[in-house]
Parts: sequence; structure tokens; C-alpha cells
Amino acid sequence: MAKSRKKQPSTTEALTVPRGPVDLSTYDAHGKPGFDGSKKKGKAALYALGKELSDLQERLYAEGVSGGNRRVLVVLQGMDTSGKGGILRHAMALVDPQGLHIKAFKAPTPAELRHDFLWRVEREVPGPGMIGVFDRSHYEDVLIARVRKLVPRREISARYRQINAFEKRLADEGTVLVKLMLHISAEEQKQRLLARLDEPTKLWKFNPGDIDERQRWGSYQEAYEVALEKTNTEHAPWLVVPSDRKWYRDLAVANVLRETLAAMDPTWPGPDFDVAHERARLTGEVPSAHR
Amino acid sequence: MAKSRKKQPSTTEALTVPRGPVDLSTYDAHGKPGFDGSKKKGKAALYALGKELSDLQERLYAEGVSGGNRRVLVVLQGMDTSGKGGILRHAMALVDPQGLHIKAFKAPTPAELRHDFLWRVEREVPGPGMIGVFDRSHYEDVLIARVRKLVPRREISARYRQINAFEKRLADEGTVLVKLMLHISAEEQKQRLLARLDEPTKLWKFNPGDIDERQRWGSYQEAYEVALEKTNTEHAPWLVVPSDRKWYRDLAVANVLRETLAAMDPTWPGPDFDVAHERARLTGEVPSAHR
Repeated sequence: MAKSRKKQPSTTEALTVPRGPVDLSTYDAHGKPGFDGSKKKGKAALYALGKELSDLQERLYAEGVSGGNRRVLVVLQGMDTSGKGGILRHAMALVDPQGLHIKAFKAPTPAELRHDFLWRVEREVPGPGMIGVFDRSHYEDVLIARVRKLVPRREISARYRQINAFEKRLADEGTVLVKLMLHISAEEQKQRLLARLDEPTKLWKFNPGDIDERQRWGSYQEAYEVALEKTNTEHAPWLVVPSDRKWYRDLAVANVLRETLAAMDPTWPGPDFDVAHERARLTGEVPSAHR
Repeated sequence: MAKSRKKQPSTTEALTVPRGPVDLSTYDAHGKPGFDGSKKKGKAALYALGKELSDLQERLYAEGVSGGNRRVLVVLQGMDTSGKGGILRHAMALVDPQGLHIKAFKAPTPAELRHDFLWRVEREVPGPGMIGVFDRSHYEDVLIARVRKLVPRREISARYRQINAFEKRLADEGTVLVKLMLHISAEEQKQRLLARLDEPTKLWKFNPGDIDERQRWGSYQEAYEVALEKTNTEHAPWLVVPSDRKWYRDLAVANVLRETLAAMDPTWPGPDFDVAHERARLTGEVPSAHR
């Protein structure tokens, strides 16, 4: 068979949310779309991605250093314990940390609240050649803000439009947006919260407020469904990542990142100087003082 | 033999610069103090450090999240091609990128030049629980600034004192400083610059200005010697890392980081809430809407 020249981003395709209304109950949090193997094979597959991911990332970085304008912004959203940190630790850690800009968005500070909700986000968008990763994001402003009625409903409605305009601008400026909703089941969350209470090495991750939010599970699912529908645009589509299996979640995200970078196809920049001349300067020199 | 309870930070001890005048020509850039093995064994040893380093880093991070005040600041200085980027890519990449704060200091911008030289540095010091890494640093302000006579000599003299006071304050606030001078030979630099000119995947790293600085090799070595002497303090000692062998350099830095973290001995934080109560809330609950 002739080798197809078309990119086949199978994980990305398998996880992309179709336009239109979203019903999260039809998404299996325990599924593993696009991957047939076992946990053991999944972990090996993740590890095996390292070299290619690292190479692609370095090309993108080199392009950015050399005047290119493209960059990637990965947005991680999901209920508590869904694995935002795990993805950073296991999938994003496969690339050079110099090329990563990670920002965890916490509850806004009083200073941040004096600005519109996108102000603090704007300041953290990645520079050229970088892979930005948002651990939570501006979507909190239409998720917890909606569930907790932190702002009037009319303002929430305006925010979806504002987010779309903001993301369109980022896309126009050369940002490829990868928006990932980490989808876990309520039962899996319960087990993970229990584990945080039971294991001394995880206790520090537990926050009693997590249970308060958990008690609004249904409202959060609904808020996610609305957000996914209203901000699922051509320039910034949503993907739902089944996340009950941690190994699948990490592998899927690494695959999506690999496919994203491969589709961007960054190439090693050429010189903006005379290579032969520089070579001559270097080899012809007598180092002025070798000591 | 009874197991010694004393920490034995052999790499750190082997690389620490004694107080007093420094003569870099007495430091072998090709050496491998504290490590007996081959390149192959060195690479395996680096890889094997991953789990312990990662565990120690997570403990420090957890401590920071839970109210602790300690953090680490690694300062990387060295001539062009000495491997600041390589250390980030190969050694620092062993820990969770969420716990790293990497800052590469370039030539100061006009806005930065309107402030004193430590202003932009102050803004990048790591937060509690973090490992900060400076790729170049405030030491450029007594290195290139001295060699290129960017400011009067008297101001350079003042800067050593200012740096010591600044670093003392950081140390008093809970920062463990790890200052690393990556020591390469002029010949090795020449080979690495040639490699950048000859390999398409490295061309983007080449900057013609690197050769201009190389022509001042002796002046830079002298500037390093003075800086190392004048800022080699108890609270912020200097280490010289022989860096002609890339694998040794990466392994040595990873070992120094491991030894530093081990000496800090961060421990998993205990709960600041009633675990039994939270457990009951979690297991006794009827999720309000499972959908």
C-alpha cells in the first residue's frame, strides 16, 4: 500500500466534540478511544512518544526563536482529581521544560478581580515557539462562576462570546488552541478523594472545599455542557478526554499534543547570517587569551 | 558498619569552590569529580536519579503548598555553549515541570535598564516549594558588564556587595541557593560552535555575537574568577562544574540538586483539617445529582 501523505491524527479525531449540544452522559469516562491495548502497553506507548514529542517541540521552539509566530496553548479543564496535575507530570514532562509555560489559575485575587476576567489570562498566553499549558483557565469564569452564581447569568452569557472572540484573536495571531475537558465519573472522583485522605503522600492535595464542589456535581456537568457547546469553535474546538483511567488520559493527551505539533510541521530554521563567514571567523581565529 | 546518619553530598562537596582567590586554570574542564564511571554508566546513573529527584521535589512542592517557606534557586552561569540549556533539558527535566520556574535572562530591555540591575531578577525569584532555575542571571551584570565596560568599574565593585546582600536576603527568607559555573575549555567551545554551524538541527542556536564574546575569552575567565571570589559566601557558595563532558555535567548537576533537596529533607505535610470528618462527608454523601 502506498503510504498516505495525509496526516492521521486519530486520537485528536476520536476525542473532538462534534458541534452542537453536548450531553456528557453519552461520553464514557472509562473509555479509551483510539487505543486498543492494555495499561501496560499504554504506559510503554507513552514512554515511546518521548523522542518524537521532544523533537517536534524543539523544532517549534527553534522556529519561535528565529522569528516564527506560532505557539500552542493547551487548556486543561476538569473536575477536581480529573488529572490536570498528572498530565503535567507525566505527559508534558516529556518535552523540554524550557519550551513549556505552565500556569495554574487559582481563585482570582482581589487585584485580579478589579479587572475583567480575561485580563489575568491574557498575561499568561505563551510566547512564540512555546507550549503554554493552563491548569484551569478562563473557563472557570463560566463554570464555577455559573454554578456558584458569582456573577449574573447575563454576564455569563456575554462571557462565552468574549471567550470566543479572545480565542479567535489568539488563533489569528498564530496560536493553536488545544482545549481538553478531562472527563471523570463521580464514582472515580470519590475514590481519588478517598485516596488523598488515606495516603500520607497525597494528603496535601486534599482540600475540604473539593467536597463542597462535588456536591454540585450535576450543576457542574451542566455548566460544562453549556460551555463546551457555546465555545466549540472552528478555531478552538473542544476535546473530551476520558479520564477514569489515568494511563489512558496521559497517553491520549500526549498523542493529541504530538498530532497537533506534527500537523503544524515546524521545520528547523535556516541561517540569517553567512555560515561560511562565521565558520572562517571561528576556525581562523587565534583565541586572544587562552590563559 | 553502622549506617552513617550524616548526609554525604559527595558531588556538592567535590565541586564547591573554596573561599579565597579563584584560578580557573587549575580547574579541569574535562574532569569528572565524584564520579568514576564511563559515559554509559553516567547516563544510566542520571536516568536512575529520576525517581528520587522527583520524589524529593514533590515533597518540597507539597511543603510550599502547605505553608512552608523553603525553595531552591539554581543559578546557571557559563560561557556560550557551556550547557545551560542542556542541563534544563536533561537534568531539570527529571522533575515535575509544575515545580520548576525557569527564567532565561537575555540582554536587558530598555524598560529593564531603567531600573537597577537586580530589579528584573527580583521578579523571577521562585515561590515557596518551587525550584527556580536562572539561565544566566544577575551575574551577567558583573561579567559581560565588566568585560564590555558597560558600567564604570566602581559600579561593578558595588554590585558584588549588592549581590551578596540580595542573596543573603533570599537565604534568610528560605531560599537555598545553588550557584553553578559551567566550566568549559576554549577548545571545547570551538567544537560546539562549529557543530552549531554544521548541523541543521543546531543552526538556530548559533549567534554571530557568540564569536565576538569568544574573542574576549581571557577577559571573561578573569571576570568569572573575580565574581566567584567576591560572591562565594556561606549563604550562597559557588560550585564549578566541569562541563567539557556533557554527560558528566548533567549528572553532576542532577546529583547536586538531589543532594541539596535531600539535605533540606522536606516531609509530607500533615492535614490542617479533620480527616475523619472529611472522610465521613465523602462516604456518607448521596451525590446530589449523578445525572
